[in-house]
Amino acid sequence: MADLKSTFLKVYSVLKSELLQDPAFEFTDASRQWVERMLDYNVPGGKLNRGLSVIDSYRLLKEGKELTEDEIFLTSVLGWCIEWLQAYFLVLDDIMDNSVTRRGQPCWFRVPKVGMIAVNDGVLLRNHIPRMLKNHFKGKPYYVDLLDLFNEVEFQTASGQMIDLITTIEGEKDLSKYALSLHRRIVQYKTAYYSFYLPVACALVMAGEDLENHIAVKDILVQMGVYFQVQVGTDIEDFKCSWLVVKALELCNDNQKKLLHEAYGKPDPENVAKVKAIYKDLDLQGVFAEYESQSYAKLNASIEAQPSKAIQAVLKSFLGKIYKRQK
Amino acid sequence: MADLKSTFLKVYSVLKSELLQDPAFEFTDASRQWVERMLDYNVPGGKLNRGLSVIDSYRLLKEGKELTEDEIFLTSVLGWCIEWLQAYFLVLDDIMDNSVTRRGQPCWFRVPKVGMIAVNDGVLLRNHIPRMLKNHFKGKPYYVDLLDLFNEVEFQTASGQMIDLITTIEGEKDLSKYALSLHRRIVQYKTAYYSFYLPVACALVMAGEDLENHIAVKDILVQMGVYFQVQVGTDIEDFKCSWLVVKALELCNDNQKKLLHEAYGKPDPENVAKVKAIYKDLDLQGVFAEYESQSYAKLNASIEAQPSKAIQAVLKSFLGKIYKRQK
Repeated sequence: MADLKSTFLKVYSVLKSELLQDPAFEFTDASRQWVERMLDYNVPGGKLNRGLSVIDSYRLLKEGKELTEDEIFLTSVLGWCIEWLQAYFLVLDDIMDNSVTRRGQPCWFRVPKVGMIAVNDGVLLRNHIPRMLKNHFKGKPYYVDLLDLFNEVEFQTASGQMIDLITTIEGEKDLSKYALSLHRRIVQYKTAYYSFYLPVACALVMAGEDLENHIAVKDILVQMGVYFQVQVGTDIEDFKCSWLVVKALELCNDNQKKLLHEAYGKPDPENVAKVKAIYKDLDLQGVFAEYESQSYAKLNASIEAQPSKAIQAVLKSFLGKIYKRQK
Repeated sequence: MADLKSTFLKVYSVLKSELLQDPAFEFTDASRQWVERMLDYNVPGGKLNRGLSVIDSYRLLKEGKELTEDEIFLTSVLGWCIEWLQAYFLVLDDIMDNSVTRRGQPCWFRVPKVGMIAVNDGVLLRNHIPRMLKNHFKGKPYYVDLLDLFNEVEFQTASGQMIDLITTIEGEKDLSKYALSLHRRIVQYKTAYYSFYLPVACALVMAGEDLENHIAVKDILVQMGVYFQVQVGTDIEDFKCSWLVVKALELCNDNQKKLLHEAYGKPDPENVAKVKAIYKDLDLQGVFAEYESQSYAKLNASIEAQPSKAIQAVLKSFLGKIYKRQK
């Protein structure tokens, strides 16, 4: 595993140096240095789970057969495309959310002399993806499928980000708009497609599969992504449309609803404590445990219904990672 | 001509309503309204020259044959893709430049309740391009060429924007970095590719041409784009790396150079007047007239060397539009 990560990081260096010599642009020394620093700051510093899972998924699709060097390299390129996509979203999200730190360092736009240039750097990160795809996949029969896939998933992510942003516009905080269907849409589009579906879809395309034949695989992975966000999301202070507050609004009585409307989204500890007390009174922990075991059982049944054992293995490996306590 | 524009605007309505029903995303009512307002505010309000020139160019490539309804529609879709690309760049550029107005109205990010959501709106505009291409060109033999073309031109534009931004970083104003090669790179990459090459390239692709066979056409159009920017750009106050200041630095004596370094990029009328006086002393108007007639003659000769009369006609129509006084 440590070995896979170091192989993966070597591919990053190859991709970076190709981008810094791209013949479609005449770099100046200053701009080449700028891009290199920007990439090193924003791309490789995360957990790399999304990128690495392309290689893992492809290996499972090949039913344990040893991958060739070429296959390892190409799955790594696709993995890095997803990491680049993530870096692009994070650089821009941090500007929109006015965030302070990211991955243990100041957000890129807060670095001296960067500022709003970070908007264009985000755009550049995004533009590197088709450059990398062209450099390594142009001429392959599935090249256009990769372009379509990345385009569609980026569109879905930006659309999910939009509903998240317009739901939380300052001065319009209105809990009554929050419902499970809105919450599900935000997490599904903003996170699940690119984090859960995209890595597996990349592996399937490289294995020669037509994604049109794997709509059920997409649905299962997107469901896992939605569950994963429910598991990790709290966001009481930020007035986020989280699963917890949506569920609380569904289950509470009129008095509790009044208290929630007053306290939710206010950053001081007292109001946060009030919200948490209502969650406790409603036994949201128990409600969540019930939701968790039901969703696990449902996903497991859907996976068992998949005709391909190799695809079952890919999906089960994701399921095992996110439902840790159930294993 | 007024007729062409009204046909073109009808296609905008069709494209907009398709995007608002995109099956890849589950719109909420609020998000559908948001996107519609954002599009109407940012996309159709310009001069539409770039978009309309796709249809004009395609007509010339067809040597005056009446276009079918389908051809008019499809060239219009490509024209609108360029207008969407332009809107995307402008929305984000206005944020980065902290601009106030655009096309006679407040910049989108200054509209109440928009603010930094405009960053994501820019991203959405960009994402609409592959959606429109997929809706109308998927399955055509040149579909992948269109995706590659838009990707490459967007990459070049963002790269040109990068060198412009890092050249004018606040607190690092350094005229000695300015040279004709830097100036040429900024205008070539930031503006010429998407404004001059892209419309003709779209028309060529739709006419069944392989762009690899038309590198000279690209060079000619990019040269026209560079000349066009020289013609319109002044930017004394903004410390922009314009052709005028670069030429002045090339021609001036030591004393004039000292004065330029002191006065350039300062917004008060006195300093602007000092810069203008140096331009006058150096007879930049005469230098420009010489540059203009030389570049016109060179472009004209390159166009005459093109083997296809239809392509000559396309290029001459662009030449006539930008070298107005020479006609």
